[in-house]
Amino acid sequence: MRLKDIGERKAIQRIIDVLEEGGATASGIGDDCAIIDMGEDYLLITTDMINARTHVPSKAKPYQIGWHIIAINLSDIAAKGGHPLGLLVALGLPDDYPTESLDEMIKGMKACAKEFETEIIGGDTKHNEILTLCGTAIGKVPKPEVMRRNGAKAGDVVAVTGELGKAAAGYHALNHYLDSEKGVKALLEPWPRIREGRILAKSGGVSSCIDISDGLAASIHQLSSMSDLAFHIEHERIPMAKEARKISQAVGMELDGLSIYYGGDYELLVTLKEELFNEIKKSIENMGTSLTYIGKVVKGKNNVLIKHGKEEILQNRGFEHFR
Amino acid sequence: MRLKDIGERKAIQRIIDVLEEGGATASGIGDDCAIIDMGEDYLLITTDMINARTHVPSKAKPYQIGWHIIAINLSDIAAKGGHPLGLLVALGLPDDYPTESLDEMIKGMKACAKEFETEIIGGDTKHNEILTLCGTAIGKVPKPEVMRRNGAKAGDVVAVTGELGKAAAGYHALNHYLDSEKGVKALLEPWPRIREGRILAKSGGVSSCIDISDGLAASIHQLSSMSDLAFHIEHERIPMAKEARKISQAVGMELDGLSIYYGGDYELLVTLKEELFNEIKKSIENMGTSLTYIGKVVKGKNNVLIKHGKEEILQNRGFEHFR
Repeated sequence: MRLKDIGERKAIQRIIDVLEEGGATASGIGDDCAIIDMGEDYLLITTDMINARTHVPSKAKPYQIGWHIIAINLSDIAAKGGHPLGLLVALGLPDDYPTESLDEMIKGMKACAKEFETEIIGGDTKHNEILTLCGTAIGKVPKPEVMRRNGAKAGDVVAVTGELGKAAAGYHALNHYLDSEKGVKALLEPWPRIREGRILAKSGGVSSCIDISDGLAASIHQLSSMSDLAFHIEHERIPMAKEARKISQAVGMELDGLSIYYGGDYELLVTLKEELFNEIKKSIENMGTSLTYIGKVVKGKNNVLIKHGKEEILQNRGFEHFR
Repeated sequence: MRLKDIGERKAIQRIIDVLEEGGATASGIGDDCAIIDMGEDYLLITTDMINARTHVPSKAKPYQIGWHIIAINLSDIAAKGGHPLGLLVALGLPDDYPTESLDEMIKGMKACAKEFETEIIGGDTKHNEILTLCGTAIGKVPKPEVMRRNGAKAGDVVAVTGELGKAAAGYHALNHYLDSEKGVKALLEPWPRIREGRILAKSGGVSSCIDISDGLAASIHQLSSMSDLAFHIEHERIPMAKEARKISQAVGMELDGLSIYYGGDYELLVTLKEELFNEIKKSIENMGTSLTYIGKVVKGKNNVLIKHGKEEILQNRGFEHFR
C-alpha cells in the first residue's frame, strides 16, 4: 500500500498507532500544536512544512512565501490562545535559487514575525531540489487560559472569526486568471489570529478552538469528534466573504465549495459559553474583527448543516494531502 | 547571483543581514540551537531538515532515516548541555511512499527518542515529491550550565568526545561497495551525545561547545572565531577511528580527509579549564565514552595543526551546502 491509497488522515492514525505500540501515549499527535507543561504556563510548539510544488502557487512572490510560512505556524499558536515567543525556519533551497529572492523571502518572514511582536530566532539552511520551507513556532499560554480541541459542551455556541472563502477565492482567481486582490492576499499572506486568540483565551468562555486552515467543514468535524458531540450549523449565518461570492460566480462554482469545504482561511473556530458570547463578540469586534454565531453544540453523532430550513449532514470534506 | 555562487555560509550571513536591517538583533541565527529565557532555565530549540536526494544515502533504510532525523536534532540540544523535552517531526512524503516504510521510519524515530528518554510530541505530514523530513527538538538547561559557542579562554584545553572519521568511513564504504558496518551505522544512525553533554554542562568547566557535524576543522573555526582566539591542535592526538583508517586505505584517500575535514560525526568539541580536564575526562569515561585532549586555546588569529612537529594552518574546510 502507498500513502495515496490511504490519504493523510489514515497516515496520521498509522503514525499514532506506531508511536503508541508498547503502551506509550501519543496524545499530542494529531493536534496541530504540542503542549509542554512548564509550571505556570504551557509551552506551545508547532511545525508546518510547505514546498513550492505542492503548496505554493507559482505566482507567489518570495516575500509572500516567507510571510506565509511564518503566518501558518503562528496560526497554530493563536488557536491555543498563546502568544508567540519566537520562530525557527528550516530552508530547503535549490542551488540555483536567486540570492535576491532569498533576501525577499527573509524580509517576508521578518515582516510577519514583527507584525505579531515576535522574531526569527533560528533555523537551518539546506539544499533541496524543490524549494521546501519548514517553520516552527514556539509560544506560551498561562495554563488556565489554554484552548484545546476537546472540551466543547452541549449548549455551547459555535462561532467563527472573520469571513470565509477568501483564500479559496484567491486560489481560483489565480487558476482562472481573474483579478482578486483580496483573495490572493488572503491566500498568500494569511493573517494569523494571534490577537483574537489571546482575547478568546483570556475570556474564560471558550471551551474548544481550532484554526480552520483545513476548511470549515473539516474543522467542525475535528472539534465535534474530539468532544463526542455534534455541531448544528445554520448555513445562512456562515459569514461568506464577498470575494468568495464574486469568484464563485465568475468561475461557476458553488459558494459552499469555496467557503465551507476549502482550506486556507486562517480564521478561528470556537465553541463558547452561550451567556458569554455577546460580551466576547464585542471584545473581538473592538479590535476590528468579526465573531459570528454559526450554530450550537448538541448531544448526538451527526454534524448537521441547516440550509433553507432543511437539515442535511455536514460532509467531512476538505483538503487532504496525498489524495 | 544564485546560492551556488555564494555557498551556505554566505547565504546564512545574508539572512542575518536582512534580519538585522533596521536595528534588530539576530544573535541566535547562525547557531544550531536557539535559546529562550524561561526564568531559571533556558529553553533550547533547534530545527534540522534533510531530504532523500541530498542527504540520505540511497541504501539507508526507513528505520535509519527516522533515527537519523531525531538524532541530529538531539545533537544540537546535547551541544548546549540540555536535556530533551520532546520532538516534532514534519514529514514531506511522496504520495507513492509505501505505508510499511512510513511505519518503519516512525519506529526509528521512536526508538531514538526513547533511547534519550524523550518522545515525539507532534509534527506535520505533507506531500512532497522528494522525501523531506524536518525535525525540531526542544530541550532545557539550567541557566548556569548552558554551553555556548563563544566563551573559550586562552589557556583552555581543546577536547573532543569519541573517535573521528566513522561517518566518513561509512559514506565512502557505501560509495565504494565496501563493508563497514561500524562506519555505516555511525553515518546513518548517529548517537547524539546527550548524556555526555549533561556531564560536561554540570562540570562547570566547559567554556564553549559545538557538535562537529560539519567536520572537526569547520567546528574548530566556528568556536575559535566566536571567541576571537586561535586553537592549536596536535595532529597526533586527534582520536582517529580505526574504521576511518581502514576505509581511507581501502579507497586510497588521506585519513585527514575523513576525520578532520568531513562532517557527519556527532561528537562534541569543547574548550575547558585545564585544571578540571582530568576530572571531567574521568566522568565522561565512566559512561564508556572517551574525551581526548587535542590541543589548546591561545591568543592569536590562525588555527594551527601541529603535524610531525611542524605547524601548518588548519584549513577551514568541511561540508558546505549549495556548493
